[in-house]
Amino acid sequence: MDAIRFTVEAQQDQARAGVLTTRRGVIETPVFMPVGTAGTVKGIRFEALESDDLDAKIILGNTYHLWLRPGIDVIKSAGGLHAFTSWDRALLTDSGGFQVWSLGALRKISEEGTQFRSHVDGSLRFLSPEISMEVQAALGSDIVMVFDECAPGEASHDETERSMNLTARWAKRSKTAFDQLQSDGADTGRREVECLSGAQALFGIVQGAGHLDLRRISLQQTVSIGFDGYAIGGLSVGEEKSVMFEVIEDIAPRMPQNAPRYLMGVGTPEDLVEAVARGVDMFDCVLPTRNGRTGQAFTSRGKLNIKNAQFTNDSRPLDESCRCSVCRRHTRAYLRHLYIAGEMLASILLTHHNLAFFLDTMRGVRQSIRSGDFPKFRREFTERLGANGE
Amino acid sequence: MDAIRFTVEAQQDQARAGVLTTRRGVIETPVFMPVGTAGTVKGIRFEALESDDLDAKIILGNTYHLWLRPGIDVIKSAGGLHAFTSWDRALLTDSGGFQVWSLGALRKISEEGTQFRSHVDGSLRFLSPEISMEVQAALGSDIVMVFDECAPGEASHDETERSMNLTARWAKRSKTAFDQLQSDGADTGRREVECLSGAQALFGIVQGAGHLDLRRISLQQTVSIGFDGYAIGGLSVGEEKSVMFEVIEDIAPRMPQNAPRYLMGVGTPEDLVEAVARGVDMFDCVLPTRNGRTGQAFTSRGKLNIKNAQFTNDSRPLDESCRCSVCRRHTRAYLRHLYIAGEMLASILLTHHNLAFFLDTMRGVRQSIRSGDFPKFRREFTERLGANGE
Repeated sequence: MDAIRFTVEAQQDQARAGVLTTRRGVIETPVFMPVGTAGTVKGIRFEALESDDLDAKIILGNTYHLWLRPGIDVIKSAGGLHAFTSWDRALLTDSGGFQVWSLGALRKISEEGTQFRSHVDGSLRFLSPEISMEVQAALGSDIVMVFDECAPGEASHDETERSMNLTARWAKRSKTAFDQLQSDGADTGRREVECLSGAQALFGIVQGAGHLDLRRISLQQTVSIGFDGYAIGGLSVGEEKSVMFEVIEDIAPRMPQNAPRYLMGVGTPEDLVEAVARGVDMFDCVLPTRNGRTGQAFTSRGKLNIKNAQFTNDSRPLDESCRCSVCRRHTRAYLRHLYIAGEMLASILLTHHNLAFFLDTMRGVRQSIRSGDFPKFRREFTERLGANGE
Repeated sequence: MDAIRFTVEAQQDQARAGVLTTRRGVIETPVFMPVGTAGTVKGIRFEALESDDLDAKIILGNTYHLWLRPGIDVIKSAGGLHAFTSWDRALLTDSGGFQVWSLGALRKISEEGTQFRSHVDGSLRFLSPEISMEVQAALGSDIVMVFDECAPGEASHDETERSMNLTARWAKRSKTAFDQLQSDGADTGRREVECLSGAQALFGIVQGAGHLDLRRISLQQTVSIGFDGYAIGGLSVGEEKSVMFEVIEDIAPRMPQNAPRYLMGVGTPEDLVEAVARGVDMFDCVLPTRNGRTGQAFTSRGKLNIKNAQFTNDSRPLDESCRCSVCRRHTRAYLRHLYIAGEMLASILLTHHNLAFFLDTMRGVRQSIRSGDFPKFRREFTERLGANGE
């Protein structure tokens, strides 16, 4: 049995509704993956993620963060990241490539890999395709990402080309190391009974910044290596939004039809819907959780900053169209009070609602593609978002 | 109908098991009340408080905090504190007396009341028995506390006597103001249909620091005014633990047999069991929530500091005897990681477990009194607590 299987079941223009089957459950696509950086989706209990309210089928973990803390030995000793965190559904781990790249001046990139200083204890560390694969094997995630290099949004053609070619060489090395680990039945960090070769899937990443010609070459390089799924990386890193959509529009439809297409680190609810319209199947983004902690709610009528004085006596829920447990129970006035008083419950409740809104949006997207109403859904969704005009 | 009714249904030596009936449900005593200072029991959702795991029947709100923020107008406009927070079960509010007393140099006490500077915005505020009753009426709590003055743990006899007599005069003024508000059918902050006279109960507070003669006089003064319940205040404020238990042992059994006896602001699980043995029915304390946020777990085998390195790979739950959702699901290793990584989920989960342990302990206390096994429960509980010896 393959680690994953993917089938497109309905398509409307470029938008696809499909099914991604993993050993840990069936995931309907397009899907949004909440980000669980350090082994927790910040501010939310796993019971809530599993509840009907959210029903997240797959979450993301960060190799960089988990490798540095608590460290691989601790997670291996627990039997892998699923067992360590008690999350029994699907997990995707990134490769750490983006995180070490984000360290900026603190890292040094060579052909071999990236040297950097840990943000936890300042120690000198080194991450490479081979090490990233080993770490992700120990984490035992269901979907592993290749170790890549990201070019800045404003990178020149030359600079981007150099970076893209490095990514291609790293992708090859990632694949080789991954295949070796899988065929060795390497310690994936899972309990013995699950210690199977072929338990993990590997996704390649297309780079090339805003340069469409390079993006196409990168796609070709990646597909020629051959992966279980393909991601578009290096977007939402400072480029104009129009550039981002240009890349997605050009690249997504050219990606293999029968493999999942994953847009990394994007975006707002409208970004998600627009990217689906261009053929993307999978998303992750910290916006619902991070912005929840800073008092920003995503609603069907646009964003809402709960700290605003206008909500002092507002007895309405965050989103009158939302049926999540927070909107069924709590008023804006109460949530504002919690936020202003610095109460943790503000973050907990806003995070819950924001995740519910993102996951619900994707539910609507999937249904509308299957019923042939996606263009209508997309139009109405976008119009409503402008209603509050914030 | 009275605001509350109280019946002792079983007694073993001084320990009592009873039923406190309020308009918002039946509360079995002895009972522990989680502290919801600013309209939230910190770090925990109301759904969790209501779940079988915790099933808290009554929580506490702080008049001082809520009066300063969000302010009474906001809470009144929502229809009272129950509606504002969405908590539909019983609520007890303290009077603000203890909080303003705790401000130390920032407050000035006179016959009329206490002047102090708000910790929120530094503004000069004044709280008196009459104002406290008005604020608590607006909050619409089920149990209102008189406005009292607390003497420090080490206060001299003279100082304590002066303070105790002031408390007695304030108790009388509290009662007069409370009765007036109730008979006026004052705006209790509740929605019209519930805006009944007699909707609230009023408890008196016995003061007198560690001086037993003064404690007895204070009890007499309080009982002679006549309240729906009686509290022991001014303990756990810096005095020796032996002094605290001397006071409880002397005073609790002298308190009216047919009214609830409430020990304010106490204490650890062992304090609760020991105070029950001396005749106390109600408790509140910030320990389970506050210590949960600093990484301390209360367990049946004593306290446990989750940050300790010894838990790095510990795959056991916090408390192997606990059946709460945290202990059923998460290991000490995972909780330690969350705490060390500064993840909010550490506070959320430790708070949940600690509350479960406190509430479960009281469940065991009630059952054992009813079955006639309280001495055995008390002995075994205390022995087990020493097991970890932390």
